[in-house]
Amino acid sequence: MNSNSLDLSDLAIKADLADYSPVRGCMVIKPYGYAIWELIQKELDQRIKACGHQNAYFPLLIPESFLKKEADHIEGFAPECAVVTHAGGQKLDEPLVIRPTSETIIYHMFSKWIHSWRDLPYSVNQWANVVRWEMRTRLFLRTTEFLWQEGHTAHASLEEADQESRRMLDVYLEFMQNILALAPYTGQKSDSERFAGAEKTYSLEVLLRDGKILQAGTSHNLGVGFAKAFNIQYQSKSNELTFVNLTSWGVSTRLIGAIILGHQDEKGLILPPNVAPIQVVIIPIFKTEDEKTKVMTECDSIFTELKAQGFRVKLDNNEQISPGAKFHEWELKGVPIRVQIGPRDIDQKTVELVRRDKCEKIKSVPRAELAQRIEDLLIDTHKFLYNRNLDWRNQNTHHNINSLEELTEVLDTKGGFANIHWDGSAEQENKIKEIAKATIRVRDFAEPLTEGKCIISSNKSAGKVLVGRAY
Amino acid sequence: MNSNSLDLSDLAIKADLADYSPVRGCMVIKPYGYAIWELIQKELDQRIKACGHQNAYFPLLIPESFLKKEADHIEGFAPECAVVTHAGGQKLDEPLVIRPTSETIIYHMFSKWIHSWRDLPYSVNQWANVVRWEMRTRLFLRTTEFLWQEGHTAHASLEEADQESRRMLDVYLEFMQNILALAPYTGQKSDSERFAGAEKTYSLEVLLRDGKILQAGTSHNLGVGFAKAFNIQYQSKSNELTFVNLTSWGVSTRLIGAIILGHQDEKGLILPPNVAPIQVVIIPIFKTEDEKTKVMTECDSIFTELKAQGFRVKLDNNEQISPGAKFHEWELKGVPIRVQIGPRDIDQKTVELVRRDKCEKIKSVPRAELAQRIEDLLIDTHKFLYNRNLDWRNQNTHHNINSLEELTEVLDTKGGFANIHWDGSAEQENKIKEIAKATIRVRDFAEPLTEGKCIISSNKSAGKVLVGRAY
Repeated sequence: MNSNSLDLSDLAIKADLADYSPVRGCMVIKPYGYAIWELIQKELDQRIKACGHQNAYFPLLIPESFLKKEADHIEGFAPECAVVTHAGGQKLDEPLVIRPTSETIIYHMFSKWIHSWRDLPYSVNQWANVVRWEMRTRLFLRTTEFLWQEGHTAHASLEEADQESRRMLDVYLEFMQNILALAPYTGQKSDSERFAGAEKTYSLEVLLRDGKILQAGTSHNLGVGFAKAFNIQYQSKSNELTFVNLTSWGVSTRLIGAIILGHQDEKGLILPPNVAPIQVVIIPIFKTEDEKTKVMTECDSIFTELKAQGFRVKLDNNEQISPGAKFHEWELKGVPIRVQIGPRDIDQKTVELVRRDKCEKIKSVPRAELAQRIEDLLIDTHKFLYNRNLDWRNQNTHHNINSLEELTEVLDTKGGFANIHWDGSAEQENKIKEIAKATIRVRDFAEPLTEGKCIISSNKSAGKVLVGRAY
Repeated sequence: MNSNSLDLSDLAIKADLADYSPVRGCMVIKPYGYAIWELIQKELDQRIKACGHQNAYFPLLIPESFLKKEADHIEGFAPECAVVTHAGGQKLDEPLVIRPTSETIIYHMFSKWIHSWRDLPYSVNQWANVVRWEMRTRLFLRTTEFLWQEGHTAHASLEEADQESRRMLDVYLEFMQNILALAPYTGQKSDSERFAGAEKTYSLEVLLRDGKILQAGTSHNLGVGFAKAFNIQYQSKSNELTFVNLTSWGVSTRLIGAIILGHQDEKGLILPPNVAPIQVVIIPIFKTEDEKTKVMTECDSIFTELKAQGFRVKLDNNEQISPGAKFHEWELKGVPIRVQIGPRDIDQKTVELVRRDKCEKIKSVPRAELAQRIEDLLIDTHKFLYNRNLDWRNQNTHHNINSLEELTEVLDTKGGFANIHWDGSAEQENKIKEIAKATIRVRDFAEPLTEGKCIISSNKSAGKVLVGRAY
């Protein structure tokens, strides 16, 4: 385990991503943090739309009775609800719940909109805020209010719904790999870890630098449960009234937590270039007024050139702060590439680059090749971060564990994932929770199903599952 | 007045922009309506960022005590607040209000973040949902929950704050003119119509096709009132602790209402091309199977070409619906240009276009010139809509009104704006409200200030004000 990591909250605040708010468990997302979210939104929104899903917007407030229509759902969410009892100076006839998720209100509308097999598949996606009254909160990872997208689709059959929920899981996986430079495991949750009201829950599980695991996104095959609760029926081709099968899937501002804890080092953040609000920072270095004129002219010219080429670039020309302090600040903030310009560089028609991921200096880069070198370095930084996360995950996935004691020990000493045989029973799952202080994360899709013996009960196991300690 | 207009709610629902929700006063924004909002956001967000304002996100829930810190503010908003009294299964120690606007929570944070004159000007913008418990609601124009952006800035002096609030008003004006094809009046509100807690409120007032007026956006110079309430002080250059001067400014999903009611005709919506989710719809026309093959091949080729050129284009190849029914549907939905393709068009290497604004058919457009003609037509549609709104406003701005009776009569018979002398007193303003059933909208910035006599009291008037009946 990496013990040099800074604490998440310290880091998020020092790097100016977020601040605590006066409202219990709620954070303020500051401009530098919000700019990461905007880049996440842009990239993911394109992918969701490419799947044919359109955005819409549904009410924040949901009648309390709606949540109660699906028995598992209310059981799962009731303890976390924030409830509006008064509005417009009066007590409401029926309390309204601030959406903890929008299945109930969206499926109420689906029942008005879906009539025939011709309407299927039917889908919407929503970018919105949700509120869940969590006991313990942590910046970005678990906040009372968070921002997310939630997609909802309706299908003629359970198989189609399952395909769709798997497709959207794959969209998230590709996005996390190619945009966030993360290498999550994907797979199916155990029954006890399923979404409240789902048939099957699939998820993406990222290994962080501190050896703990983060559930970074989920996709649910909801079957017909909600359709029955909200009476969403369609006339089939053979003229029969039939319940639709639903899916829902979402990722949230928690992804920013995944980026922070998935890539950080002892100096601070390392942002993947595709979501770095600033990809390149230019630092002028000079002593005399003459040098200043010369250096600032060159810095302006580099800034203009890089901006015109589409890089997200910042020229830090604050004269109140020394170059050394700037190096420190932009390293903390995780900017992938630093360009340093002094008088000698200009004489030699070169620049000095520093890549954040490896903290490696690249001297004497010919000025004429700068833009191309930066483009290459950004691609290389992405690859480095992705491969580091993948290697980290693979090196910290422990096999050949044969007992609950061994499981506990490996998680105590090494963290990461343990890939173990489990008999599928709630009884053994509870022992994993109570004794190893860990949870079953997923059954890895990439792992072939091979039978074996449960490491706790020695009963038959249908295949291994990934176990670990999660945020 | 245009009496052929469809009712707003009918139109919004028939055109598939929105639907009623089961929550009092809240609507569902459907994909076609939300796509307009996304285009509005994209265009406006660019402009806000070009002014140097960055996006951030603040909590939805605000402690009730925060709202009470600024006396005018709580008086204005208390009657409209939705209040969370319970959460996580327990009664809260202090109720939380769902933000009706975010001055209080944002300025609480400003007091933590602003310390020195070097921190000024300081600014953030937020895209968010807000809730105001309105008595009478109307789709898009006045809903319990709505989506908006709210910008907030802090300045060293009242003059700078005033300049900033005027600058942002101008940004909104340019946006409404060039993107929404609307020609609002801009000016300052009377004291009674000011934002709760503001020194000065500026607004944009659009004349709709039905002769009524819509306040489409506001910008406030808040002076030091909130700064005193939230203790936002900075160390000035001369080392004195000084209160900042604040501004706030916002536009909302109400803009979609302005587009609908500002441009509609008896056939339905007419969308300005810059925010039309579909700018061009292609309708294939055929009878035989042979014709179908030929026509569909051509339609696919046109679709591909137009899409590649960056137009937002739809090919309506639904065979369940007749071309006539499609014409009707896409006219109702306000798509600016319709391309009709039949077998004869293909033989002649031409296409037929129909522009929605003038409902004008353009026959025999050479196929090779199609993309260029569409580009020209979209520009021309924008100009037509803008000029029509401007002319409509100018023709329906009534001058030479000399009494309250004349004011009432002109508003009864013609609607629109009356530009009248008013003595600045609340007493005469109340008579305008009670007898003419109208409100003072703004003092038009474009109108030179010339003294005169109040049409009601005959007392001295410093200049004319625009009066009318508003949504």
